[in-house]
Amino acid sequence: MLKVGIVYPASEIYGGLRGFYDYGYLGHLLKQSFENAWRRYFLSLHENFWEVEPAEVMHQRVFVASGHLEHFNDPMVECTRCKERFRADKLIEEALGISAEGLTLEELDRLIREHNIRCPKCGGELGKVRWFNLMFPVVIGASSLELIRLLKDYLATRKESLLEQLRQRLDELERSTAYLRPETAQGAYLLFKREFELHRKKLPLGLAIIGKAFRNEISPRQLLIRLREFTQAELQIFFDPERWSSRFSEDFDFSEVRNTRLNVLLVKDRNSGQAFRELSVQELVEEHGYPAFYAYFLAKVFEFYVDVLRIPRSRIRLKELSEREKAFYNRYHFDVEIWFESLGSWKEVGGVHYRTDHDLSGHQKVSGVNLSVRREDGSEFIPHVLELSFGVDRNIMALIDVFLVKETVGSKERVVLKLPPRLSPIKVAVFPLVSNKPELVSKAREIYNLLRREFPEWKIVYDEKGSIGKRYRRQDEIGTPFCVTVDYDSLKDDTVTLRDRDTMQQTRVRVDELPSLLRSSLSS
Amino acid sequence: MLKVGIVYPASEIYGGLRGFYDYGYLGHLLKQSFENAWRRYFLSLHENFWEVEPAEVMHQRVFVASGHLEHFNDPMVECTRCKERFRADKLIEEALGISAEGLTLEELDRLIREHNIRCPKCGGELGKVRWFNLMFPVVIGASSLELIRLLKDYLATRKESLLEQLRQRLDELERSTAYLRPETAQGAYLLFKREFELHRKKLPLGLAIIGKAFRNEISPRQLLIRLREFTQAELQIFFDPERWSSRFSEDFDFSEVRNTRLNVLLVKDRNSGQAFRELSVQELVEEHGYPAFYAYFLAKVFEFYVDVLRIPRSRIRLKELSEREKAFYNRYHFDVEIWFESLGSWKEVGGVHYRTDHDLSGHQKVSGVNLSVRREDGSEFIPHVLELSFGVDRNIMALIDVFLVKETVGSKERVVLKLPPRLSPIKVAVFPLVSNKPELVSKAREIYNLLRREFPEWKIVYDEKGSIGKRYRRQDEIGTPFCVTVDYDSLKDDTVTLRDRDTMQQTRVRVDELPSLLRSSLSS
Repeated sequence: MLKVGIVYPASEIYGGLRGFYDYGYLGHLLKQSFENAWRRYFLSLHENFWEVEPAEVMHQRVFVASGHLEHFNDPMVECTRCKERFRADKLIEEALGISAEGLTLEELDRLIREHNIRCPKCGGELGKVRWFNLMFPVVIGASSLELIRLLKDYLATRKESLLEQLRQRLDELERSTAYLRPETAQGAYLLFKREFELHRKKLPLGLAIIGKAFRNEISPRQLLIRLREFTQAELQIFFDPERWSSRFSEDFDFSEVRNTRLNVLLVKDRNSGQAFRELSVQELVEEHGYPAFYAYFLAKVFEFYVDVLRIPRSRIRLKELSEREKAFYNRYHFDVEIWFESLGSWKEVGGVHYRTDHDLSGHQKVSGVNLSVRREDGSEFIPHVLELSFGVDRNIMALIDVFLVKETVGSKERVVLKLPPRLSPIKVAVFPLVSNKPELVSKAREIYNLLRREFPEWKIVYDEKGSIGKRYRRQDEIGTPFCVTVDYDSLKDDTVTLRDRDTMQQTRVRVDELPSLLRSSLSS
Repeated sequence: MLKVGIVYPASEIYGGLRGFYDYGYLGHLLKQSFENAWRRYFLSLHENFWEVEPAEVMHQRVFVASGHLEHFNDPMVECTRCKERFRADKLIEEALGISAEGLTLEELDRLIREHNIRCPKCGGELGKVRWFNLMFPVVIGASSLELIRLLKDYLATRKESLLEQLRQRLDELERSTAYLRPETAQGAYLLFKREFELHRKKLPLGLAIIGKAFRNEISPRQLLIRLREFTQAELQIFFDPERWSSRFSEDFDFSEVRNTRLNVLLVKDRNSGQAFRELSVQELVEEHGYPAFYAYFLAKVFEFYVDVLRIPRSRIRLKELSEREKAFYNRYHFDVEIWFESLGSWKEVGGVHYRTDHDLSGHQKVSGVNLSVRREDGSEFIPHVLELSFGVDRNIMALIDVFLVKETVGSKERVVLKLPPRLSPIKVAVFPLVSNKPELVSKAREIYNLLRREFPEWKIVYDEKGSIGKRYRRQDEIGTPFCVTVDYDSLKDDTVTLRDRDTMQQTRVRVDELPSLLRSSLSS
């Protein structure tokens, strides 16, 4: 991924920052394509689905209400010798090959002692396991710098008079602490009331957010899988549970997905050795007790992966979470998982969470603002939330993992990024056959400019450097679906060679037919 | 802006966070339109201009190199009585009506004493003016929470043994402090080497970033003008100063802008009473000594405002900054200013900064990584940077200020957001004449769905609530350029009424001609 300019370690020339990555130009274009495809697909599921863009820094009380301040912790353990810190559950999982998710501090501590698990870095003894909150505090105003200045002063001088000031600054600091959001979701809950009123108090109301989230991970790992700064694409769907328990089909066409077949890994199949089983949406509802609305959106998410992203069916599954694994406020919770060949494992890239009224109730309680809405019959209720949640960076990594292939062509190998054209960073490359013939160069430039005018929303490149074969390979590697080559015939009959990335077929095409041909081929 | 859903105070149900705003659905659509227009315009200025997306959190040494840790300070003064903090220069400007920008701490202190300026809130005496660094630190890892825990422990117990631990934590905290970027620009400088190599070591190379930046402002103010979290759109153009001093026209067509007339406020005209004078690009070069490359991009920026955003010429100017006002590393610096009717003043919305090799030289020195490049003749140099910088939020506020107008129509007033169609959040609204005739509703829905399919990239809405007049007004207020109304005639002859926001003219249009008509009208 580094080689072709997808991502680089952030602040790389200063040695990087663990858990932070920069998107280079290709990575940015790919990410933008993914986000646009996501936006188009999910926002068009209903006319009352909208995108909003809340601030990334949020009030501390947001996270009192959401429970993040109390519960958004990972178990951390520190080496008593080298002081390196680790996630205790991951350490145990790696040492013992068991799942340690959801264990208590005492259980983790006991496992470490019993199995004499030691620091993987220096072999030292590990300290006690403690909770570590994963949010990044952001202190607004001057108190944090002033506190440090005072503390240094005190450590140097030990003046008693500084202690009272330290106490004051500490209070002030705690009052003025906000947080970088650990998930985009909360922004939608806070905006619910405003947007609900603007959209004429209609449910369902969908609020989507595509944006950054931040988590102070103890051990960032696996490139884009566990990041400290990452992008989420989330859709929060607010609805009336009474209406959807019986009249969901008045809002969405359930019959459209009834027979859709999904790859599902049920909790009870976990030890069956199978990666998933095929179930129709109808079976999920009738035999496994999931409500129609939940199964409907599960199917829509699955279809997004299969139809829009074109992930092969064998590499995607919906994984049902057990009572122990899922968050306590989620009534239903499936992860979307993709098989990563490069990691040799299934990885979560999204989730479908039925969060009930947990979120709005929490915010109503802590803020004192009434977040209930009224039915036509006058009864009041707090809307429930169905969350469709996706990690954009993980999805980008999945796309590379799935679509970057090595092929043998004749006696040669070629590397091709076989992305669906709509996701390709660069849509078309235009080449003159050779660069030392001004007529070819100028004709190629003319066509390049024509295409740029015709498709201002696409990235189109011009390249004249190196042999044609090399230029094709270069575009193959970054996933460009089509190359247009201008040769001597082009000067005579106004035709060009259109070369297809996947088939490597070259077709002769008239220049005046090129735009419509590209338009239809590239919308897939 | 709040009323129609452009922006709301962030974390509003918790009382808000000063200097932070959330974009509602309309604000988001408008912001997205602006960003897309910006992207298309500036990235198409040259084929080697690209967009990248670096992390928002950056290594502390980035800001040693950039000078932000040392110099990115505002003068802060605290009331000795009520402890409220103020920006000293702004306080003086408001009290004395003079410009206090760029004064030293001593000068500020002297002015406060001499004029007996007191706390505007409680009338108390002001303390000494100090520098306050505007960056938000982000502490990676556990040290910040641990420091606070230890400090509380110490304040409670006064145990000597805790002091050594406090010292250690303080060291650790300082080592593991990163910063939220105070500007997007640094990300482009850090990525320069990587991207330069990917793009075959060609100059000019343009790296654009549209993203968040964060500043711990002492006094956020004027809605979207001075924010703590804001969006920038910046283009850093890396170039060879030797080439551009004589052969700029090989890279850009200077003749295209030679006769373009710009509104310029020169330093020497500041006290003339005129808001600006008109100068051609040629005059700027020949009579005022600006190099062709600088004048060229100044003209391109001006054209963006006039041709793309359609800001009336009388409300936009390029303001030359004095030696004292501009940053020491900027050789040339013009602000782009727009007249805000609502504020009764000119406000900076962008800037064109010739930063020389200041940035890359700084990073080369601090990182030890060689950032120089080689000319064809073998000579080496550090590329220079021309920065085109824009505050997205301020531009959004400018668009509302410029285009939101009250008009008298007959005896009635209407509020219209006369945005250029390409910037309008919603492009088309479709109405049935009345909502209680199923044939009209279903015909209108059919057309709504047709347009959504035809234009997946546009937001199109359907509305049946209230009288037609009310529905038109509602769309006027949020800037929707066209409304399509389905009436009884539509059922007979497959025509609809197309109503123009600005002229309020209604034309009869055949449904099958609607898409092409909208396409051509909405691209302006």
